[in-house]
Amino acid sequence: MQNRILIFDTTLRDGEQSPGASLNIHEKLEIARQLEKLRVDIIEAGFPVSSPTQFEAVKRIAGEVNLVIAALARAREIDIKTAFEAIRDASRKRIHTFASTSDYHILGKFSDTKYGRSLKEKRQTVVKMSREAVQYACSLCGDVEFSAEDAGRTPLDYLCEVIETAIEAGATTVNIPDTTGYTLPSEFAQKISHLKQQVKNIDRVTISVHCHNDLGLAVANSLAAIEAGARQVECTINGIGERAGNASLEEIVMVLQVRKDLMHFETGVDTREIYNTSKMVSGFTGIVVQPNKAIVGENAFAHESGIHQDGVLKKRETYEIMTPEAVGIPKTKIILGRHSGRHGLRARLSELGYRLNDDELNKIYSRFTELADKKKEVFDEDLRLLMGDEIYKQNTYYELKQLQVHSGTHTIPTATVEIGLKDQVIQESATGDGPVDAVFNAIDRVVKSDYSLEMYQVRSVTSGRQAMGEVVVKIRSSGHLYAGRGVSTDIIEASAKAYLQAINSGQMEKTAVSNPPEGERLSNIV
Amino acid sequence: MQNRILIFDTTLRDGEQSPGASLNIHEKLEIARQLEKLRVDIIEAGFPVSSPTQFEAVKRIAGEVNLVIAALARAREIDIKTAFEAIRDASRKRIHTFASTSDYHILGKFSDTKYGRSLKEKRQTVVKMSREAVQYACSLCGDVEFSAEDAGRTPLDYLCEVIETAIEAGATTVNIPDTTGYTLPSEFAQKISHLKQQVKNIDRVTISVHCHNDLGLAVANSLAAIEAGARQVECTINGIGERAGNASLEEIVMVLQVRKDLMHFETGVDTREIYNTSKMVSGFTGIVVQPNKAIVGENAFAHESGIHQDGVLKKRETYEIMTPEAVGIPKTKIILGRHSGRHGLRARLSELGYRLNDDELNKIYSRFTELADKKKEVFDEDLRLLMGDEIYKQNTYYELKQLQVHSGTHTIPTATVEIGLKDQVIQESATGDGPVDAVFNAIDRVVKSDYSLEMYQVRSVTSGRQAMGEVVVKIRSSGHLYAGRGVSTDIIEASAKAYLQAINSGQMEKTAVSNPPEGERLSNIV
Repeated sequence: MQNRILIFDTTLRDGEQSPGASLNIHEKLEIARQLEKLRVDIIEAGFPVSSPTQFEAVKRIAGEVNLVIAALARAREIDIKTAFEAIRDASRKRIHTFASTSDYHILGKFSDTKYGRSLKEKRQTVVKMSREAVQYACSLCGDVEFSAEDAGRTPLDYLCEVIETAIEAGATTVNIPDTTGYTLPSEFAQKISHLKQQVKNIDRVTISVHCHNDLGLAVANSLAAIEAGARQVECTINGIGERAGNASLEEIVMVLQVRKDLMHFETGVDTREIYNTSKMVSGFTGIVVQPNKAIVGENAFAHESGIHQDGVLKKRETYEIMTPEAVGIPKTKIILGRHSGRHGLRARLSELGYRLNDDELNKIYSRFTELADKKKEVFDEDLRLLMGDEIYKQNTYYELKQLQVHSGTHTIPTATVEIGLKDQVIQESATGDGPVDAVFNAIDRVVKSDYSLEMYQVRSVTSGRQAMGEVVVKIRSSGHLYAGRGVSTDIIEASAKAYLQAINSGQMEKTAVSNPPEGERLSNIV
Repeated sequence: MQNRILIFDTTLRDGEQSPGASLNIHEKLEIARQLEKLRVDIIEAGFPVSSPTQFEAVKRIAGEVNLVIAALARAREIDIKTAFEAIRDASRKRIHTFASTSDYHILGKFSDTKYGRSLKEKRQTVVKMSREAVQYACSLCGDVEFSAEDAGRTPLDYLCEVIETAIEAGATTVNIPDTTGYTLPSEFAQKISHLKQQVKNIDRVTISVHCHNDLGLAVANSLAAIEAGARQVECTINGIGERAGNASLEEIVMVLQVRKDLMHFETGVDTREIYNTSKMVSGFTGIVVQPNKAIVGENAFAHESGIHQDGVLKKRETYEIMTPEAVGIPKTKIILGRHSGRHGLRARLSELGYRLNDDELNKIYSRFTELADKKKEVFDEDLRLLMGDEIYKQNTYYELKQLQVHSGTHTIPTATVEIGLKDQVIQESATGDGPVDAVFNAIDRVVKSDYSLEMYQVRSVTSGRQAMGEVVVKIRSSGHLYAGRGVSTDIIEASAKAYLQAINSGQMEKTAVSNPPEGERLSNIV
C-alpha cells in the first residue's frame, strides 16, 4: 500500500458548492454510482447537518453504493451525530470532521470572546474542539478523518499541534487542505514533509490533501504533496467546487498513469470511465467544461493546425502523450435509431453510467422513440440530455401544456402559453424583445413571480442537423438561486421548460420546511 | 533585470490554433492593442508564411502596436524571409524560428532519407538546419529566438547540443517548449538547470519556456522553470491553444504577484487589464472560459455555501487571497442608457479596450441606440457583444433582409427568410424540428450549401431581462471549419445571422486564392 494513492472524491460535497450547481437526490445517486464504476476509493457524499435534503441524499448513497462513504461534520456533536446517522447503512463509512486553524479563519469565525480573548486562547479552544470532535466521532465509527481548514495558511507549529491532537484522539486520516488555493507546490510539499517529521505517530495514519485552484496550482500542489508523503488526495470531477474549484480528479489520475516512469504511485481508478463521469457531472450541474480543459475538454485530443494534423497522421505519438481511449472517449460513435428496442436502450444507457428501474426506463423510452422519429440517429449525447431532462425531475408544480410563438425581424415577438397547475389550466400571452423573452413574460403572468433571471445558457446541441438543444436557466429569488433544465429540438420550447422547472424548484423549496440544526448558524467549512 | 520575467504572449499564434478559433485581422489587431494595454513584453503575432491573411495580420500589428512583435518561422529561408517582411515595420521586432528535436518528432517528420538514414544522421541535419536558420535570421534582425520543438521529450545531451548551436549562431533567446505537455514540474526544472550548467554562453541569452497543458501542469511547469533560471514564459490569455492549450498568462502573472513573498520575481503586466483581455479573447475566439477557471472564471471570486458567504462577509481575506479589483473585475457595473451620447460610448468602449475610428463609432452607435431603446440599461457585456458582432465583420456575401418564424408545441416550426445576394433578393421558407432548424433549412435552400453543422452555441446573455443572446455557429465544409457569430435580443435572429456569417466566411475563403509557400508542405510547428 506504500505507493497506493487513495482517491477521495468530493464532487458531491465541495463540487456541489459551486455557485448554481445544485443537484437533486436522483442526480447525486447517479453520480455516486458512476463514481463506483470509476473506482474511486472514498466518496464524500455531503454535509448531512446542513439540510434535510443533504441528509437524505447521503443516506440514500450510503445505502446503495459500495465504496467508503464519508459525511462532513463540523467539530460539533450535533453535526457528527447527524453525519453518522446519514451513513449508518454504509458497509464502509467515514466521519469527516474539521476545524479552522489559520489565524484568518480563527479571528474571522471565532471572534466572540466565548472562544477566548486572545488569539492564543482561541487557538486552544480550536484544539479542544478538535480533540472532542474526533473522540466523539471515534465512539461512533472506526474510520475518522480530521481536517485542519485553511492549513495552507496555518503556522506550522500550530498545525502540528492540532494534527497531533487529532491523531491522539483517534483520527485515522488527517487532511491538510489548502482551502484558499494559496500555496505553491514546493511550499506545500515542505508543509507535508514537516508534518511527517514533527507530528507524533503520523506514520500510523493516512495523510490527505485537499487543494483549491485559485492560482491554478491545485493539481501540482496535490502531486507535490504525494511526493512528500500524502497518500490520499481529495478532488472533484472536472475540478468543480467553490470559486476556482478543487483539484481535478482526472488530471491527478492521468498524471500518475502517464508519468508512472517518474512518479511511482498508483490509484485504483478505471480511467476508461473518466469521460462518462465528466459528461454526467457537467450535464447534471450545468457547469460547462471549457474546450481547452486538460483530459476532458472537447479539444484535449483534437488538433487544429494543418501542421499538427500532419504530424498526428504521420505518427500519433508526435503530439499525443495518451490515447483518447485511455480516458474512455469512444473511437466510434454508437448510434441508436427508431428500431432500437427497450433492451438496446437500457444496455446503452447502462454503458453510459445510468442505471434505471423499469418505470424510469419506460419514461425515457417514450421520449427516446419520440426523438428517434424526428432524428434518424440518436447519439450518446442525445441520451445524456434526455436523462438529464426527464427522469430525475419530479418538481411539477406548474406544467407546460401548450406553447405558441411568433417572431421575426419585422414582427413583435409574441408568445402564448397554457400552463397546468393542479386542476387548473391557465392561458396567457405576452410580447417580448425576442421569442424567449416573450415566453418568459407570458409565464411570469401565469406564476406572478418575482424571480430575476441570472443565467440563460444553451448547451451542447448534439450531433446532426436535427440536434437537441439543452437550456439551463438560473433564477434568483430572495437571495437563492434555482436552476432549471429543458431539452427539446425546439430551443424555445426547451427554454420554456427550463424556466418553468426553475420556478418549480423555487416553489418546492418554499413549501418545504427547512430544518437547520439548533444553535449557531453554520459558520465554517473546509 | 535579474528577477524580471518577460511575458511572451502567443494568444494570436498558438492560441489561434485552437480548433475553431479563427480570428480575422480586425479581431487580431484589437487583441494586440489590448495586450499592449496589458503591458506584456512580446507578442507573437502569427506565422506569416502559412497564409496571406496571417502575413497581413502580422504586418498590421507590427505597424500599429508598440511592443516587441515576434513572427514564427520554421528553420527555412522562405519562412524566415517572409516572417521578417511581415514585421519589418515594427519598432522592435523578433524572428522566432524553430526545429523539432525529440526522437518522436524527428522520426515522425523527417522520415525521408534525404534528411539522413539513421536517427543520428537526421539529428545532425536538424542541428545544421538550426544553425543556418538562426544565422540567416540574425542577418535580418538583431532579436532572434530559437525553439527546440518538443524539448520536453528530447534527450538532454542532444538538446544541449542544439541549444548551444543556436547560441553560437547568434540567437538571443532560446526557448524550451514542452510541446506535448508531458513533463512534471521537478523534471522540467531539472532540464532547465541542466541546460544552464552545460550549455556554453547560455548566461548571455534569455532562457524561455513554452508549456502545454495536456496534464494540467502548464502553469506549474512554467513556474518551476522560472525558479530554475528561465526569464521568459510563453503563454496565452485564458490558456487557449492546441489541444488542452498553453500556460495561462493570467495564472502565471497572478501567482508571481500574490506569492511575491516566496517567488521574488516580477512582470511588467498591468494586472487590472486581465479581466478585459480575457473577455475580449473569449468573445472573439468563441472559446468559453469555464466558471471554475482560476482568476478569470465567473465563479473565481464567487462563493456559494452559506458558510463561506458568512466567512466572506465577516472578513474578506478568510477566503480571498486576492481582490477581484486586482485583476480588473469592476466593483460596480457601469451602465449606459439611451441618453448616453457618442462621447460617453466611445469613452466606455475605450476603457473596455476597444479603439474605434469615426466610421466604426457611427456604426456601433446606431446599434447601441437601437439596443438602448429596447433595454433601459446597457451593460459592458452588451457592448462587448455588439463589438464582437458588428464592427469587425466584413464578410457580407449573403445578407439577411427579413425573417419570420412560427413555432410551438402543436405547430410545425416554419421559417421564412429573405436574403440579399448582390442585386438579387431571394425568398425561401422551410420547416424544421425547431425554429432554429427551420431557419437553417430555409437558408440552406437559398445558398444551396453542403455545410455540416459542427457547433451551435448560445453564449452569455447579458444582464437584465431584455438581455442579448450571442450565437456562435461552426460549420464544416471539405475539412474546414468556419465560424459565425450573431447578436440580438432575439435568439432566432441571432442564430440566422451567425449561420449566414459562417457561410459567408466559407464563401470568402473559397473565392480567395490561398498561396502556400512553394516546396514541401508545412510539417512542423512549436
